[in-house]
Amino acid sequence: MQLTLEEIIELTSGKLVSEGSASSFNGLASLKEACAADVSFLGNEKYYADYLATNAGVVLVPSIVDEFPGGSVAIEVDNPSFAFGLIVKKLASKQRVFKAGVHPAAWVADDVVFNADKVSIKAGAVVESGSRIGDGTEINSNVSIGEGVVIGEECVLHSNVVVREFCELEDRVILQPSCVIGSDGYGYELVDGRHTKVDQVGIVVLQNDVEIGANTAIDRARFGRTIIGEGTKVDNLVQVAHNVVTGKHCLIVAQTGLAGSCELGNYVTVAAQAGVAGHIKVGDQAVLLGRTGAAKNLAGAQMYMGMPARPVKEEQKKLASLARLPKLLKEFKELKKSLNDAG
Amino acid sequence: MQLTLEEIIELTSGKLVSEGSASSFNGLASLKEACAADVSFLGNEKYYADYLATNAGVVLVPSIVDEFPGGSVAIEVDNPSFAFGLIVKKLASKQRVFKAGVHPAAWVADDVVFNADKVSIKAGAVVESGSRIGDGTEINSNVSIGEGVVIGEECVLHSNVVVREFCELEDRVILQPSCVIGSDGYGYELVDGRHTKVDQVGIVVLQNDVEIGANTAIDRARFGRTIIGEGTKVDNLVQVAHNVVTGKHCLIVAQTGLAGSCELGNYVTVAAQAGVAGHIKVGDQAVLLGRTGAAKNLAGAQMYMGMPARPVKEEQKKLASLARLPKLLKEFKELKKSLNDAG
Amino acid sequence: MQLTLEEIIELTSGKLVSEGSASSFNGLASLKEACAADVSFLGNEKYYADYLATNAGVVLVPSIVDEFPGGSVAIEVDNPSFAFGLIVKKLASKQRVFKAGVHPAAWVADDVVFNADKVSIKAGAVVESGSRIGDGTEINSNVSIGEGVVIGEECVLHSNVVVREFCELEDRVILQPSCVIGSDGYGYELVDGRHTKVDQVGIVVLQNDVEIGANTAIDRARFGRTIIGEGTKVDNLVQVAHNVVTGKHCLIVAQTGLAGSCELGNYVTVAAQAGVAGHIKVGDQAVLLGRTGAAKNLAGAQMYMGMPARPVKEEQKKLASLARLPKLLKEFKELKKSLNDAG
Repeated sequence: MQLTLEEIIELTSGKLVSEGSASSFNGLASLKEACAADVSFLGNEKYYADYLATNAGVVLVPSIVDEFPGGSVAIEVDNPSFAFGLIVKKLASKQRVFKAGVHPAAWVADDVVFNADKVSIKAGAVVESGSRIGDGTEINSNVSIGEGVVIGEECVLHSNVVVREFCELEDRVILQPSCVIGSDGYGYELVDGRHTKVDQVGIVVLQNDVEIGANTAIDRARFGRTIIGEGTKVDNLVQVAHNVVTGKHCLIVAQTGLAGSCELGNYVTVAAQAGVAGHIKVGDQAVLLGRTGAAKNLAGAQMYMGMPARPVKEEQKKLASLARLPKLLKEFKELKKSLNDAG
Repeated sequence: MQLTLEEIIELTSGKLVSEGSASSFNGLASLKEACAADVSFLGNEKYYADYLATNAGVVLVPSIVDEFPGGSVAIEVDNPSFAFGLIVKKLASKQRVFKAGVHPAAWVADDVVFNADKVSIKAGAVVESGSRIGDGTEINSNVSIGEGVVIGEECVLHSNVVVREFCELEDRVILQPSCVIGSDGYGYELVDGRHTKVDQVGIVVLQNDVEIGANTAIDRARFGRTIIGEGTKVDNLVQVAHNVVTGKHCLIVAQTGLAGSCELGNYVTVAAQAGVAGHIKVGDQAVLLGRTGAAKNLAGAQMYMGMPARPVKEEQKKLASLARLPKLLKEFKELKKSLNDAG
Repeated sequence: MQLTLEEIIELTSGKLVSEGSASSFNGLASLKEACAADVSFLGNEKYYADYLATNAGVVLVPSIVDEFPGGSVAIEVDNPSFAFGLIVKKLASKQRVFKAGVHPAAWVADDVVFNADKVSIKAGAVVESGSRIGDGTEINSNVSIGEGVVIGEECVLHSNVVVREFCELEDRVILQPSCVIGSDGYGYELVDGRHTKVDQVGIVVLQNDVEIGANTAIDRARFGRTIIGEGTKVDNLVQVAHNVVTGKHCLIVAQTGLAGSCELGNYVTVAAQAGVAGHIKVGDQAVLLGRTGAAKNLAGAQMYMGMPARPVKEEQKKLASLARLPKLLKEFKELKKSLNDAG
């Protein structure tokens, strides 16, 4: 597969802003590793030095750039990362291909409702009684689907995923390998000195276009539903406890924990290694920076950091004053001494 | 399945404290979502506004409440959450059912000791040579049991769990999906500039009534045993390193890490995202709040927070003084200025 | 299996420094649990009290020790932990054994390139089309290998590991249970209010002698390669995002997160629960203590702590001054009062 310069310009709706020597391209590479046959892009100012020194055949650049590397064609586009994605779709040779059919080494219960001509179920996958699978869905190797699970259309369940009994996936849901949907919530009552398990009889619902990362765990509700809202994307190794409800189009980044019954609004971003306490609410479009620990309700449309979470400016002021503390201690000591000497 | 008001009162040992219109019930719901056919409960004061506005047919309430929602029956009970659990057991229609037998798509080595009429082994499960499985135990789909593993009675191993060679589970142990028991401890010696693996030849022992969360990892001992004590409950995504020993009836909440050879006493609580350093001891009934980082031995029967861990009062005093720092900096500057002006 | 005192001295290149009563040994135990038939070692000064009270038959000790427990033989060695490892190799009775052959309940695609006499593939394992497996490699139960994966010689893939399509493992790579290699990177572009998935068409490369912990996730590159350098050891529950590159012989401890496109030099240590932000560089031999949060490039050969990461001495000074803050607040108040009274 090859793309000409003209094809790249058309594909990206771009504008030629600097000429170079190459005219056809078959590779994809970072600015640092690219050679004359490769397409690359400048998507982050941290790579500006790499950009000026690149050997890429063609580079997709944002409009603010006015220097160009010698030898490379430069094409101006609105969003270099997105435009590069369009090239990737054309050039990437090694892509996953959907092949319908049930592998002989899969095991599917007799009463599972699905169209074997339109669903892919791979070796080692297990689908238990009473489940339903929509057309265009791919169940990869060693996936375990419990009883009565409902899976929509065009979902991808990667290898070794577990979806426990009665949980529901709407359409175009993607589950990265080894994530767990519907584990029991962590609930116990202390009875005669022993932690006694509280039955967890609810389910998990993953709405349309949700994606869940590798080795993430989403607990079923104690009763009712744990809900991940439409279009929300959850990264790897995230903990979502029982009865959590996230709004639509949230981003929940790696290693974050959402405690039991917390509620996120729409378009909330929770960056990596953050935590949201149980039973609290986070408003629409709130942004929690990395490691933020939210212990009380947080209003929407604001950016928070720290533990306990504070608006970013407030927390930064606190951190700045802390940096001045050693000097303050020294000056205070001197002042006391000079007053004593004077007195 | 339906329950009458009289049945609910008897089941929960409750007392009718406010009358309502409905007299039989078949559903379970939160205060906010409940309708006239549903049972609900007030288990957390955060939901008090939802309680007063609920449409639930019947609500289980604690004795301290003296207002009641119009239209709902209110029943006073000692512990509303626990009492609600008793109703859940009766009403939940979709519950897991134990079915004995070895699925034809499971693979069990010839010499495994178990009673096929009293054990459930599902499709895709693998049990290797020399293992033993007690009566009433359930091994779900795609579980991997290594060589020489000993599993007690009435255990539940959910799908895709791994128990590596020679590890031991006592009775009524529950393993949530995709947790790992008996991975190698993280141990290396630097030899000629290379990290050389230290053999990890010990095992993991999970005592009676232990529960382990989804995607949690518990490393085998270097030699000897990593032990999770009787009745201890470990949440999702927890790291338990080699040679850790926890006491009985501990609670280890999500995303916490217990480093190598640390020891917890009995009834220790470690809240979410906390960490306990290697080779230290935490006393009986100690409580580590979320994100606490314990770097030195901690005495029992106290509550800790912060990193390094401090008694809660001490740490809160530090945080409170930090909040006053910006004002102090300002006042100190003014004081110096006024002294200079005066001088 | 038994070892005599002479055999132990020879095996460890040790020197007899204190005589005892036992002369042959068949067990391995910690100082606290050992009896007269056991070998033990003093590897950490925290166990010095246990050492003096031990009932071990023989103890391996470092040269700095000049007290010896009564009744035990003491043998001085350069590195007691390493020397003990040599004894473990001899005495541990329950060790994993490599058995070549493809289990009938495994499923391997017809075109997979491997020597069935020199590779072990266990029940429930799935190897998809186009993959290659080197001699001496062990693929355990319920492992999922995607299409076109390349695996070198003498690797061990423990149960329920997932290696997604086209990823590459060099020689002697060890994957602990349920880790995921090659999950999609977390990349989205916001288009018309929806997070639209950015194709992740790169791979993961694990170089020679890499070990990856249980339930760790390593994302494939957006394009190009996510690389874990030769000899690097990654612990359990670690997140490695797309396009991360680690140098050789790094240690990445449990529950740490490495964000997208960050680069670690050689011999970098990142302790538990730390985080490294996206697109930054950490120099050779840098050490990040537990929970460190690195947000900017960090120079090599230094030790860092805190969030944001600072050189250890600087951060400790800040923490020390914070501890003096409550007293400062009090003294400042007194000073102001005394000046007012005087004025």
